[in-house]
Amino acid sequence: MTCNFVKELSPRLIEWRRSLHALPELGFMEYITTYRIGKELEALGFKLFVGRDALDEESRMGVPPESELKTHELKALEWGVEVSWLEQMRGGNTGLVAIWDTGKKGDHVGFRFDIDALPINESLDSKHFPAKHQFVSREQNVMHACGHDGHTTIGLGVAHYIATHHDHLAGRFTLLFQPAEEGGRGARAMVAKGWLDDVDYFYSGHIGIQTLPVGTIAASTPGFLASTKYNAYFKGVSSHAGINPELGKNALLAATTAANNLYSIPRHHDGVTRVNVGRLVAGSGRNIIPEDSYMEIEVRGETVEIAEYMAEKATRILQAAADMHDVTCTIEPVGLTEVVVCNEELIPKITEWCAESEYVKEVLPSVTVSGSEDVSLMMNRVHKHGGKATYMLFGTKLDHPHHHPVFDFQEEVLLVAVDTFISIIKGGSGLID
Amino acid sequence: MTCNFVKELSPRLIEWRRSLHALPELGFMEYITTYRIGKELEALGFKLFVGRDALDEESRMGVPPESELKTHELKALEWGVEVSWLEQMRGGNTGLVAIWDTGKKGDHVGFRFDIDALPINESLDSKHFPAKHQFVSREQNVMHACGHDGHTTIGLGVAHYIATHHDHLAGRFTLLFQPAEEGGRGARAMVAKGWLDDVDYFYSGHIGIQTLPVGTIAASTPGFLASTKYNAYFKGVSSHAGINPELGKNALLAATTAANNLYSIPRHHDGVTRVNVGRLVAGSGRNIIPEDSYMEIEVRGETVEIAEYMAEKATRILQAAADMHDVTCTIEPVGLTEVVVCNEELIPKITEWCAESEYVKEVLPSVTVSGSEDVSLMMNRVHKHGGKATYMLFGTKLDHPHHHPVFDFQEEVLLVAVDTFISIIKGGSGLID
Amino acid sequence: MTCNFVKELSPRLIEWRRSLHALPELGFMEYITTYRIGKELEALGFKLFVGRDALDEESRMGVPPESELKTHELKALEWGVEVSWLEQMRGGNTGLVAIWDTGKKGDHVGFRFDIDALPINESLDSKHFPAKHQFVSREQNVMHACGHDGHTTIGLGVAHYIATHHDHLAGRFTLLFQPAEEGGRGARAMVAKGWLDDVDYFYSGHIGIQTLPVGTIAASTPGFLASTKYNAYFKGVSSHAGINPELGKNALLAATTAANNLYSIPRHHDGVTRVNVGRLVAGSGRNIIPEDSYMEIEVRGETVEIAEYMAEKATRILQAAADMHDVTCTIEPVGLTEVVVCNEELIPKITEWCAESEYVKEVLPSVTVSGSEDVSLMMNRVHKHGGKATYMLFGTKLDHPHHHPVFDFQEEVLLVAVDTFISIIKGGSGLID
Amino acid sequence: MTCNFVKELSPRLIEWRRSLHALPELGFMEYITTYRIGKELEALGFKLFVGRDALDEESRMGVPPESELKTHELKALEWGVEVSWLEQMRGGNTGLVAIWDTGKKGDHVGFRFDIDALPINESLDSKHFPAKHQFVSREQNVMHACGHDGHTTIGLGVAHYIATHHDHLAGRFTLLFQPAEEGGRGARAMVAKGWLDDVDYFYSGHIGIQTLPVGTIAASTPGFLASTKYNAYFKGVSSHAGINPELGKNALLAATTAANNLYSIPRHHDGVTRVNVGRLVAGSGRNIIPEDSYMEIEVRGETVEIAEYMAEKATRILQAAADMHDVTCTIEPVGLTEVVVCNEELIPKITEWCAESEYVKEVLPSVTVSGSEDVSLMMNRVHKHGGKATYMLFGTKLDHPHHHPVFDFQEEVLLVAVDTFISIIKGGSGLID
Repeated sequence: MTCNFVKELSPRLIEWRRSLHALPELGFMEYITTYRIGKELEALGFKLFVGRDALDEESRMGVPPESELKTHELKALEWGVEVSWLEQMRGGNTGLVAIWDTGKKGDHVGFRFDIDALPINESLDSKHFPAKHQFVSREQNVMHACGHDGHTTIGLGVAHYIATHHDHLAGRFTLLFQPAEEGGRGARAMVAKGWLDDVDYFYSGHIGIQTLPVGTIAASTPGFLASTKYNAYFKGVSSHAGINPELGKNALLAATTAANNLYSIPRHHDGVTRVNVGRLVAGSGRNIIPEDSYMEIEVRGETVEIAEYMAEKATRILQAAADMHDVTCTIEPVGLTEVVVCNEELIPKITEWCAESEYVKEVLPSVTVSGSEDVSLMMNRVHKHGGKATYMLFGTKLDHPHHHPVFDFQEEVLLVAVDTFISIIKGGSGLID
Repeated sequence: MTCNFVKELSPRLIEWRRSLHALPELGFMEYITTYRIGKELEALGFKLFVGRDALDEESRMGVPPESELKTHELKALEWGVEVSWLEQMRGGNTGLVAIWDTGKKGDHVGFRFDIDALPINESLDSKHFPAKHQFVSREQNVMHACGHDGHTTIGLGVAHYIATHHDHLAGRFTLLFQPAEEGGRGARAMVAKGWLDDVDYFYSGHIGIQTLPVGTIAASTPGFLASTKYNAYFKGVSSHAGINPELGKNALLAATTAANNLYSIPRHHDGVTRVNVGRLVAGSGRNIIPEDSYMEIEVRGETVEIAEYMAEKATRILQAAADMHDVTCTIEPVGLTEVVVCNEELIPKITEWCAESEYVKEVLPSVTVSGSEDVSLMMNRVHKHGGKATYMLFGTKLDHPHHHPVFDFQEEVLLVAVDTFISIIKGGSGLID
Repeated sequence: MTCNFVKELSPRLIEWRRSLHALPELGFMEYITTYRIGKELEALGFKLFVGRDALDEESRMGVPPESELKTHELKALEWGVEVSWLEQMRGGNTGLVAIWDTGKKGDHVGFRFDIDALPINESLDSKHFPAKHQFVSREQNVMHACGHDGHTTIGLGVAHYIATHHDHLAGRFTLLFQPAEEGGRGARAMVAKGWLDDVDYFYSGHIGIQTLPVGTIAASTPGFLASTKYNAYFKGVSSHAGINPELGKNALLAATTAANNLYSIPRHHDGVTRVNVGRLVAGSGRNIIPEDSYMEIEVRGETVEIAEYMAEKATRILQAAADMHDVTCTIEPVGLTEVVVCNEELIPKITEWCAESEYVKEVLPSVTVSGSEDVSLMMNRVHKHGGKATYMLFGTKLDHPHHHPVFDFQEEVLLVAVDTFISIIKGGSGLID
Repeated sequence: MTCNFVKELSPRLIEWRRSLHALPELGFMEYITTYRIGKELEALGFKLFVGRDALDEESRMGVPPESELKTHELKALEWGVEVSWLEQMRGGNTGLVAIWDTGKKGDHVGFRFDIDALPINESLDSKHFPAKHQFVSREQNVMHACGHDGHTTIGLGVAHYIATHHDHLAGRFTLLFQPAEEGGRGARAMVAKGWLDDVDYFYSGHIGIQTLPVGTIAASTPGFLASTKYNAYFKGVSSHAGINPELGKNALLAATTAANNLYSIPRHHDGVTRVNVGRLVAGSGRNIIPEDSYMEIEVRGETVEIAEYMAEKATRILQAAADMHDVTCTIEPVGLTEVVVCNEELIPKITEWCAESEYVKEVLPSVTVSGSEDVSLMMNRVHKHGGKATYMLFGTKLDHPHHHPVFDFQEEVLLVAVDTFISIIKGGSGLID
């Protein structure tokens, strides 16, 4: 019985989650995380495609600088990642794809679990659950503040189910453990590798929608915004600010002028727009005309057209701000998410399949979230080939919003989510049902 | 005797000044002023070159729009300007050159008097001298607030002296009554006509330096800043601000971004810089994305190089601000002044020649003024051909600065200035001395 | 028969419209327009409340300056407006309310027609219909570019119908001919006078929605944005830009900084926002640090809360921009519109009543327009007292959008609109039908 | 003989310089540098006042954060700084004062040598002299790029001379080895301790003016600008940029608006002004409304009044930018330099005293440098009490400007500078001359 399976797995889910939470890794540097997942799935009998085999290296976006990658690779070795595994991932090629082919005729079902953490300094406050129970992040300024430790755990749970129940299942299962979801940087590289090209059904989801209690799920999520992420680098000429200010070409002023004008991109008649300059770093010293500046920018739109409108305006502003101050500007796209429409036919199915779950108490047809997710690239690829995809939400009370230093979720949601996926597997691919 | 001449002329000087003050005309629209000067000098026997004969039409800068010129031409007719004179000036070709050739061998001496007024609304306060004595400006928003009514009067006084004393003088005299000094727009067109090409000695000056009392003059003025004046026109696309803001191309934002960045042009190691956006008009209605904007700009520099540096930066900023908001930008140069160095040899001469004047009590070698004057173009042309030029200051107490709605000067300064010029004429070109 | 009535009235509708179009008047200066309407309705037997009797003087917003009002009052006299009528309107108290009480028991039905024009210079292009047919605006920079000449005409048509058919009607009719709809300035003053306090049914509408052909109408318009309009006046200190820039307090820089930051007010999660700086005028002359500046601003929001959020942010930015440049800021609210929800019960009724109209071919339940309209204040007042209100759209092909110098509409829409109102009157208040 | 003394000292000067260069320390963290200087002077017999005894703790400006100080204190221990010495300096109280009293009646002569390095990453290029000769900085992002390693070396040379020649000298010598000259942060704290209060003659100087060859010195330096340095911290509220932008209070926009407006502070009639935002750091992540921002600012003026004008304007702009975006602003003054006029009487004396130096080939009376130096605070204190102070320049060819990653100077200048100070000591305080 499912119920028993999840209940029995429950202690291990908690253990996995906490262990992952304690060692968070940023996008494209999930060396240890990938290794842990891989070793677990290898033992279960999955066919694995790790790192460079899981994604198209050239299609990654926003890869961290070489020096940072190297530092983390060394750390991975210290933490016991085998050299052969590391070789497979070296240079920021993290994540893996696990495949189970039942050998029986049936659908190809895909699942995606994202595994990366955020550059946030986790709170050590004793009231913060992970701190109190000693699984708080051991890394300064890195934290699982978006629940991807939970997502990875759910993926491991689903894998265990498949491996232990494959006799009762038909068709083929592809589990994508995706790196670098934050910033919309990793999905593109997995899509480019072709994993989604013949997927019939595709399911993914997120834990932590705060308006839903544990036990309530949403079968689809309209409202994702298309987005583009950029890094902009301005390069000018430094000069002594007291003696020869006229010799400088001020990269700081280019950036500040761009920032002020980016927020002024006109609203759009056809729907929601967003723009943010999330980070700006300029200059080297007080008495030096700033030679360099750097900005992290994102624009979003409710439709593809609006997102393109925003991107075109942003690019124009950045270039003109550079021209204005006679500096150069390099604009690097570092992330991309798309607008996506969940397949409506899956809603009644999920509702039906979960009806007997002990963990899923209620299935809402859809709950709107106006964020962005690069799973949209995967879903759109599936739809393009005639497959059906949806993105679900798994309710849990949240005392603080996502991306907050004391973000935490109720661990019971892990059981609900695993049981949702199991219900879907049984409902869609189970031989006996 | 000089003294008697000036004393006797004194009532007429006052009369001329007040009459000119009451009917001020803006640059290139001094139709009535030019006519009045011309009729006076014609009667004295000067050879006149009026309007189109006095300046090079193509070399004028910042000429008012056709419709405005037409309005003033009609008014000139109403005020009694003869049609033949108006024909000579039609289309903003004002000002005149008056020549007296003694027929005797001697130097060619040039004088320049500027005749235009400012777009300022003169105060009607009863404590304001022109208001109290009923010669306040009859024109709304036009005022002789820089003393050019005085300069014109001085020129008439000098002309009277020459005409009545030519028997005692040698050489040739050229009096330039220049239009459109404000904004540095008129000198260029007179220079282009060649009037300065063979001038041996050139004198001009300004009344109203507030640190000097009546009777004190300065023989030279270092410190003029080179300057360039621009009008910038941004043209975008209007749109309903509520319904389709995304369809607009915002000419107001281009102008405001340009304005903010213009003031940020870096200071210069080699000397004084200035920048000002003196006027900005944008948009047509509250709920319309602004389609048009217009700015009046000037930049200045202590040297030619600095002025060019400022102009290059300003132009770059204007163009980039337009690009940033996807609008077009037309930059029209509308004024120009140069750096100039007064000829030092003239300082002791003026001092010597004025020693016996009853009106000139003290001659200072030089007083620095950090303004800009397009007489600089004339002086530089004279210097280029080996002539000698200087620009003088005539002291008078000022209760309010130049360009102020209650600007006024002590009328005694007119006598001092006329006697300075007479002393120079006698000293430099007099047969008996 | 209705049909015959409208058909017979048709030449007069055209005549009224063209006559009104030729003599457009800006908000609170509709002296001649009000007089013309009044004389027409007086002859029909309506009870009139003109000017100061029609609106609450103190509740008007954005009243033009005294001098401008005076100029237009003089012109009104020249155009033949009777002195007694002018006295009633003097000081910008335009518009009128016309009442017809049938004496029979029945509902109190209100209609609103707005009568003001826009500060736009109408095209004289011979392809522009009003120019071709010689009823183009005789006023420079004033134009009926939003169809209020049509609205006024429709009101006159409706009044004729009531006056000629009152025997067949029951209840009471109040026709509000509202001044100063542009800028959301006039409705508030009519509401404050109490005209809407006991209205049972309230109908208004707009001609010219471009997606609907002539003959198609919409029975309701969701989507109006709440808005607030401001004028902001910055007052600094002028100074010579070359000589003493440090003595100036730059009102232009305060305005440009405010403008750039106003457009940066963050988007809102809960709905649509808008912000526009529609006009900015600063400074007096090129070489003077600008002492004064002036901005026309509006903010909008999809809900009252969002509109208040926008207004709070805007006010804060304006004040801080003034502080930044050490100038003062006066913020004057000059317009207000509200969010409004059309009463849904009226949709099937209008549809039913218009079913037999020869002019109304199709009734759409609703068409969304994301503009702002101060009729919202009237409708909300009606709803507050339990009445029912809606705002309709009357389709016509438009070759150019509203507020455009060649805006024009198909005059057939006037017949459609009049017949819509007649159908409503007959349906709702007719004794025989 | 002097000549022999300097020649013999020369290898040690080179050794000291290179050793100091290899281990640069930033302002208020010169723990090892101070210790090295101290041990050397202690051995020579100077009376020492170290760290907390050398400066007034409360009067320091721009002290680094506690955590950074701690890190460097630990490193100092690792490098062998004795605990008792470290205790004396703990918490950023670096630098020392060394006194030699000859016991003979005579003047009190003060010398100042600054000892801190800059946050610049030294080039490892093999053509860079320190790299080639293996004394390049061992610290990432810390470099002696302004020659203070040379200044410290010169101070050690001067101390050696005094200690070995005290029999021939009269009066008292105070050597101030000042921390944190960069940013104008350290002099104030030494002045506050009273060291300059009874100094009769005060000498300091800088190596590396590029227009002078080795062997040429300037006896005085007019043109120092008064300056104030600030750090500004903006604190807002973060929010998810996609989901709830309206909940954020954007500290980045406050900083960028401030930056753009700071550069717009008007030029000043009375003299040179400067303003620079040398560093700006804002925000934490791309999709988060920035909660924090930080700016490093400096303003300068040719006179005290102009510097105060600039500081007042800057403070106003920062506060208003914070208000505009509803964030808080903390403005921390972190540095101060004054305008200073070198005592002219010292120029002929220095010229005379150096006449017989084998190293000083030429003494120029003065060379203008328009930078800022906090030695100005010391000199002004000396002048206030009737003493005489000057600041000299020691020529050396520079292939790259100060503050450049490949900055280097000709080591021969060290000999010239030491011999200049020796000449001054002998000339001013020598018993035998």
